[in-house]
Amino acid sequence: MVTRYLSVIPLDEAMALLAREFPCTPSVMQVPLEEAAGRITAGPIFARFSVPEIHLAAMDGIAVVSAETKGASDQRPVTLPRAVRVNTGNVVPPGYDAVIMIEDVWEEDGRYTIRKAASPWQHVRPAGEDLAESEMVMSSRHRIRPHEIGALATYGLTRLDVITVRIGLIPTGSELVPAGTRPAPGQVVESNTLMAKAMLEDAGATCTRYPFVEDRPEVIREALAKAAHENDIVIVSAGSSAGTKDYTADVIAGLGTVLVHGVATKPGKPVIIGRIGGKPVVGLPGYPLSALTVIREIVLPFLKTYGLAVPDPEIIRAVITSALAKEIGSDEFVLCALGNVGGHWIVSPQSKGAGVQMSAVRANAYIRVPRQSEGFNAGDEVDARLMVPVQDAKGALLVTGSHDPVLDYLADLLRPSGVSLISTHVGSMGGILALKKDECHAAPTHLLSDDGSYNTHYLQKYLPRTPVDLICVAGRQQGVVSRTGLTFAGMQGRTFINRQKGSGTRMLLDYELKKAGIDPSSLPGYDREVTTHIAVALAVKSGEAEAGLCVYSAAKALGLAFVPMAQERYELAIRREHADDPRIQALVAAIRSPAFKAILDRLGGYDTSETGTRRTVS
Amino acid sequence: MVTRYLSVIPLDEAMALLAREFPCTPSVMQVPLEEAAGRITAGPIFARFSVPEIHLAAMDGIAVVSAETKGASDQRPVTLPRAVRVNTGNVVPPGYDAVIMIEDVWEEDGRYTIRKAASPWQHVRPAGEDLAESEMVMSSRHRIRPHEIGALATYGLTRLDVITVRIGLIPTGSELVPAGTRPAPGQVVESNTLMAKAMLEDAGATCTRYPFVEDRPEVIREALAKAAHENDIVIVSAGSSAGTKDYTADVIAGLGTVLVHGVATKPGKPVIIGRIGGKPVVGLPGYPLSALTVIREIVLPFLKTYGLAVPDPEIIRAVITSALAKEIGSDEFVLCALGNVGGHWIVSPQSKGAGVQMSAVRANAYIRVPRQSEGFNAGDEVDARLMVPVQDAKGALLVTGSHDPVLDYLADLLRPSGVSLISTHVGSMGGILALKKDECHAAPTHLLSDDGSYNTHYLQKYLPRTPVDLICVAGRQQGVVSRTGLTFAGMQGRTFINRQKGSGTRMLLDYELKKAGIDPSSLPGYDREVTTHIAVALAVKSGEAEAGLCVYSAAKALGLAFVPMAQERYELAIRREHADDPRIQALVAAIRSPAFKAILDRLGGYDTSETGTRRTVS
Repeated sequence: MVTRYLSVIPLDEAMALLAREFPCTPSVMQVPLEEAAGRITAGPIFARFSVPEIHLAAMDGIAVVSAETKGASDQRPVTLPRAVRVNTGNVVPPGYDAVIMIEDVWEEDGRYTIRKAASPWQHVRPAGEDLAESEMVMSSRHRIRPHEIGALATYGLTRLDVITVRIGLIPTGSELVPAGTRPAPGQVVESNTLMAKAMLEDAGATCTRYPFVEDRPEVIREALAKAAHENDIVIVSAGSSAGTKDYTADVIAGLGTVLVHGVATKPGKPVIIGRIGGKPVVGLPGYPLSALTVIREIVLPFLKTYGLAVPDPEIIRAVITSALAKEIGSDEFVLCALGNVGGHWIVSPQSKGAGVQMSAVRANAYIRVPRQSEGFNAGDEVDARLMVPVQDAKGALLVTGSHDPVLDYLADLLRPSGVSLISTHVGSMGGILALKKDECHAAPTHLLSDDGSYNTHYLQKYLPRTPVDLICVAGRQQGVVSRTGLTFAGMQGRTFINRQKGSGTRMLLDYELKKAGIDPSSLPGYDREVTTHIAVALAVKSGEAEAGLCVYSAAKALGLAFVPMAQERYELAIRREHADDPRIQALVAAIRSPAFKAILDRLGGYDTSETGTRRTVS
Repeated sequence: MVTRYLSVIPLDEAMALLAREFPCTPSVMQVPLEEAAGRITAGPIFARFSVPEIHLAAMDGIAVVSAETKGASDQRPVTLPRAVRVNTGNVVPPGYDAVIMIEDVWEEDGRYTIRKAASPWQHVRPAGEDLAESEMVMSSRHRIRPHEIGALATYGLTRLDVITVRIGLIPTGSELVPAGTRPAPGQVVESNTLMAKAMLEDAGATCTRYPFVEDRPEVIREALAKAAHENDIVIVSAGSSAGTKDYTADVIAGLGTVLVHGVATKPGKPVIIGRIGGKPVVGLPGYPLSALTVIREIVLPFLKTYGLAVPDPEIIRAVITSALAKEIGSDEFVLCALGNVGGHWIVSPQSKGAGVQMSAVRANAYIRVPRQSEGFNAGDEVDARLMVPVQDAKGALLVTGSHDPVLDYLADLLRPSGVSLISTHVGSMGGILALKKDECHAAPTHLLSDDGSYNTHYLQKYLPRTPVDLICVAGRQQGVVSRTGLTFAGMQGRTFINRQKGSGTRMLLDYELKKAGIDPSSLPGYDREVTTHIAVALAVKSGEAEAGLCVYSAAKALGLAFVPMAQERYELAIRREHADDPRIQALVAAIRSPAFKAILDRLGGYDTSETGTRRTVS
């Protein structure tokens, strides 16, 4: 057995260790006023001059000597011996002590008449009314708000000392290529330090990405020593696991001390915390979602102790749609789709794969399952931590069921109206079960019954007393995808790539196999399942399989041959009770829009003659 | 009478007019990936390559042919004929279909033995698992989150089309000087376009500040025509009122159309909305808080219609401490101090002066009083709109009463601990009344009784059945401030600057005048009131008055002469029931800290021998 980690400690112990082992003193940098918004002051800020420095007119009108206005009235207008026309902001001349608004003044031949006396100092902004020289404008550790930039200019400030934390980011790995390069087999686009930089600078850190370092201890050593010298914190991307080329821990141990190797979080476990020259060094795991978790749950909270502003996520209590089992002992973080269905907040865990970056793009929330917990049962109420503003979560439209690429285009059409369509691919049957539990807004489905009809029988069976509308997205061609133009008959004996149980495409396959009297086990690869049309096409393109079943648009997108087999009815099942929900109305409007029809025509393989029609099942 | 505005329309009509009159189409610009966080996509974004493009090892271990592992067990270990050492992320070689974790492998002489069979595709990341080439990564109008930068790099994206709104900002006014220049009498530091730029760019706009334009119609005209050509929106700062040099409306009318001159908001009424070459032009009022209100209530909501993300302020229901009377017909916006006192949210309106920029620095919330409303009574529950994160509002410590410059230093000491001290200057009596109503956390007070004692008698009188702690801030010298070193006796007959009724300093003056048998009316300027020590000193410095009463530190700050008159006890009155509030404990700890004592010594005029001591009144 190979030992993976020196020691794995709980997350809260790791955080306590960081606070204990390091002084957490931020760096101070000077920024020009125009770049100060969002920054945090390093020390108190004092006014360099008084505002105003001298008495000013607070209105457009005339400056007067108030004593000379005494007794003026409608009956007895007073023409002033001396009065000076002033605009708002003009200096009130010495000896004058009031301003009369221009509306209350009658002018003739340069002389002013008034019908009401002025009280001393009326409409005058006295010197220092706003702030006096030497007064404190804002304290230390104040986060400068955009609207305060004007005030700071007014008080004479043009450069400000603000705090930051200098973080050196070192990407290691001989397999890395820079963003924009198509990776050859075995190469990987370096993305973790790009992500880290964006997340950490959003919190006010100042990041330096160092050049890629290949997997050789001596060059990693050199890069680490340099970065530790130049920064407050160093983050080494990858090399923190136990692969044959994971040198990070050894290099840190050589230059300083490894304090922690492994924190009990999931994802994110293979993290290293060390010290070089008094500076904290964090070894980031290589999987993007592991790296994301370490940055969000360890590095960002650590930056808080330096005084940077790291907002806590907003929390919404929501009902979880599926069980989340876990072992006691580690904190788990699960990306989710959160939405409000019929007045209830619903949260659905997404894929747990640490390599699937798209789940962090699709997710609008995450759940933290504490280490003492054994997890949650479906239906439990949990804390969903928001990754978007509350307003966006309120606009989430949960579409759960059968996958089709056009769902992404519907999302694209809906987004400008403030609706965020989040689709979860669980197959047609999974969608109908979610609809039954009222855990989604719409369930895309294409379930074929023995009589050749689509969807209605299944809804009647699974939601017997619930009125449901079926909105037709399109008639859709399913067929055999291959590199060589195989037919359904021709694909016998070839390696196959299948869809998951419960998906309409799988049921179509089984229906056709049965009809043709073919034993599924005669298809090599029948057991190999993927969850989307495009994944089927990709397996064929990559040579993993010779044939599969998918929709035309997926085959076309990857330039593969497609032989049609069946046209099916791809519909959205929606509970009637939600028909008035503005998000659902926006969805139906988007399906019926000419723009959507144009997209279907362009993608190909869709029959739009019934697109947007409504059927009812009850 | 001079006509001020062409027409004044309600705010909601102005917003409807903007949406109706203009197409509100954003500009598209391309940004490098590293600058894309926070930006909003202009169109859907598609993956440029599949991730992974080829099957990869999902674990550190060995790649195997799963069929060759069949039957392996503890009893019957299998030594594999062919197996390849792989690290996480390495390519699984063609023909191999599973990975076995390194922990489950025994190696000897380069040959691998296992004790458990591998199922096909275990620990393999299949090609396209994350995303396939041509799939949609994110939709149009998606606000790119920092953590998504990594995913975008992985999917091959390095430059992104995002939306923005190009806004030209034109500062007009011959009185303007740039930030950093000390304004001569009658000059003003140009701050409104700096503030506008910070606020609008925070929302994703791209602002260009044009050079200052003097108050001449022909040059304003030239600047406006150029800016309207180069931007989507033009904002002209100031010149929107009815002063003799307010040319903006005429110039807009000459180049295009004035649609609105005057919107019924307070502050912010003298706003102009016009159109030049199809582009919206906004004439901003000159007063900073008026400009702030127009940007926040008109321009930012207008940018939303272009697709930019402008978050709505969070709202907290709070009890208002003083009446807000207003006339029906205009929407009023009032800056406030918001805090939670003993579990209740309390909101106190700040100064309404549109020139007092500090009120927008001090405020952490604002109230909108709708135009149909006649205002609020003290004690009403109102919507407080947050200008800070909720967390910061929860940390607000409301200190209401007598003013002293050291309160700012206490705020500075407290801020790093997450406590925001917000002081409101209403004089000692005002503070005691706020304490009585339980509307502040602490009331700074220095009220002299006839027996020469401080504060206790007043608390016994006004809070007779409420136990109160008095924490001594310092013994404090009050005295006569002048340019020439006047004594109390010597200031008779000189122009005086007074403090407001209810302030301890005013009561001290009246006490001393009475004792000396002097008639207050014999002091010229006795009626002229300001609300802070530094304002008294400033009036003396500017020559408005020859003498006043203030604390030593204020006189010293402005380099004026000071003749001591009395030492008083400046204390914080705190309800005993709040003694356990962590904010109050932090406050008391700050007063008792050596750092605070050092500050008092440095400022001068304070006796620290009793600083931090507690007295109780009940």
